[in-house]
Amino acid sequence: MRRGSLHGETDLSTVTFLSPVQEEIKLVEERMRIQADDTHSDLRAALEHLLAAGGKRIRPTLGLLVGNMLGAPLEKLVTLGAAVELLHTATLVHDDLIDGSLLRRGMATLNARWSPPATVLTGDFLFARAAKLAAETDNLALMKLFSETLATIVNGELTQMFTSRGLINRDNYYKRIYAKTASLFEMTSRAASMVSPANEATIEAMRDFGYQIGMAFQIVDDILDFTGDQATVGKPLGSDLLNGLVTLPAIYYAEGNPEDEDVLSLPNGGWTNNENMTRLVDNIRASNATQKAMLEAEQHVDRALARLDSMESCAEREALENLAKYIVDRKV
Amino acid sequence: MRRGSLHGETDLSTVTFLSPVQEEIKLVEERMRIQADDTHSDLRAALEHLLAAGGKRIRPTLGLLVGNMLGAPLEKLVTLGAAVELLHTATLVHDDLIDGSLLRRGMATLNARWSPPATVLTGDFLFARAAKLAAETDNLALMKLFSETLATIVNGELTQMFTSRGLINRDNYYKRIYAKTASLFEMTSRAASMVSPANEATIEAMRDFGYQIGMAFQIVDDILDFTGDQATVGKPLGSDLLNGLVTLPAIYYAEGNPEDEDVLSLPNGGWTNNENMTRLVDNIRASNATQKAMLEAEQHVDRALARLDSMESCAEREALENLAKYIVDRKV
Repeated sequence: MRRGSLHGETDLSTVTFLSPVQEEIKLVEERMRIQADDTHSDLRAALEHLLAAGGKRIRPTLGLLVGNMLGAPLEKLVTLGAAVELLHTATLVHDDLIDGSLLRRGMATLNARWSPPATVLTGDFLFARAAKLAAETDNLALMKLFSETLATIVNGELTQMFTSRGLINRDNYYKRIYAKTASLFEMTSRAASMVSPANEATIEAMRDFGYQIGMAFQIVDDILDFTGDQATVGKPLGSDLLNGLVTLPAIYYAEGNPEDEDVLSLPNGGWTNNENMTRLVDNIRASNATQKAMLEAEQHVDRALARLDSMESCAEREALENLAKYIVDRKV
Repeated sequence: MRRGSLHGETDLSTVTFLSPVQEEIKLVEERMRIQADDTHSDLRAALEHLLAAGGKRIRPTLGLLVGNMLGAPLEKLVTLGAAVELLHTATLVHDDLIDGSLLRRGMATLNARWSPPATVLTGDFLFARAAKLAAETDNLALMKLFSETLATIVNGELTQMFTSRGLINRDNYYKRIYAKTASLFEMTSRAASMVSPANEATIEAMRDFGYQIGMAFQIVDDILDFTGDQATVGKPLGSDLLNGLVTLPAIYYAEGNPEDEDVLSLPNGGWTNNENMTRLVDNIRASNATQKAMLEAEQHVDRALARLDSMESCAEREALENLAKYIVDRKV
């Protein structure tokens, strides 16, 4: 389910990887929807709102494709997909509250419509239901993996909150995007192979496939923050930098221009100066920093694609290849 | 670990049920403490603060006593105890944030010291670690039960939030205190017997034991809100009513005094009138409503004690009897 604002080109590649699981994604969404059935009508409305806001459902798609390729039971993949997407949704609900964001994917966030208390509890409710769904896969190792990933994600957010703004540090950046994004892609892909009749080597290959496309996904997100069509991305260009968050394009630019006064100002609170940061964003856009960052994302995708080499040819393998390529080709 | 402000009498009965597991509770606290070891120093400090705030550790004590009585491995009981207490702590952290409470057990709440975002994330972190610990019991049924209980607790909080204030309704009250308190007592006692070599009948008996003392615990809490020593309880008398929350003593009073103008005003926002509510609190205190509520709590304890009849005599059974009795005898 894509939103109308996308480029035709991107639409095509999305369809390519979505088509083998298009019907199954509907089952995942239905499974998500019924989580609020036995609750208060306001909570049901909130979940409907969150579901209607859509999103690419890229994580459940990843799980379905990997699991189908390896012969996992559909029921477990649908349960896993719903658990992963609800966990993802829960983190977005709390993130938007924390950041005070009023829009996501062009729709009002929950905190824009509800009180902070109701938003906190709705996030908690989604965490709880995600954990319940994960338990319903009846796989203890998967359950452990799920709770560890939740801990990784939250710990990453806390670390980001406590880390001083304007910090230019590669290692810190990679850790952050792993916790924020790659860990859940990695978990999804690994978990889908764990509920399949796959051997350890295959599980490890699929874990790494998820990790690599997850890293690429977040790097591309961070590039789009500089290069994206503002209307499509839905936030001002360079919004990360304006919040003191130094991502890969800015790191490449800083490495190439260590004497740039705006770069030098960053760790000392320079990111709070809107005028200077607008200039820095322009300079980063005009430099080759975003290309360098894109090269790095492409290397991750290449490593992901190499992991598919040992898999048998099938529609799902082809879709996974397209999914990996889409991650660096996408415009939003 | 009791706080100084308690009555000697209460101290004695606490010691009676704590003594068989006093050393094991320290293991639970240590297991809780290390959950933040690999995280940011500020988060470690927050967890230390939450642990130092103490509390009676009544839930882990319940789990340890039931499990020891039934021959469960200590390691699993310590893990379960830490999981349950962290889950409990996580709900308190988010509750205090939502209610804007600045003090709990005489110490500053996390939200009194930290920003709302940091408090939201710390609660999330504690949820994540609680789930991780629950998974470490290596028991899938327990893991499911744990996530269901988390969902019950959060759903209860959401329902309370969406329910109109000033509502006088017994059924609503029982559902609320089950979700808020009894569900976690029930889960703890049931889970401790599930990791023991116990048969289904014993597990069911212990589940009900936990349920009954959990219901009694919350009813007594709600009575203490009217009758407690203000300094010891740590909040103004009748604070529930002043927040539009009608608990069992108020329900009994309303049933006995249906024409009382303050009672009649409740569903129509009368609870927002401080002067009238102070009068109502005084009237409830002067009536036999709190005694009637206490009788109901005692009936729950009696049912709990009856569940112990079929257990073999041992130090843990005796301690569980004392624990059940303490719940209605306590002053805080």
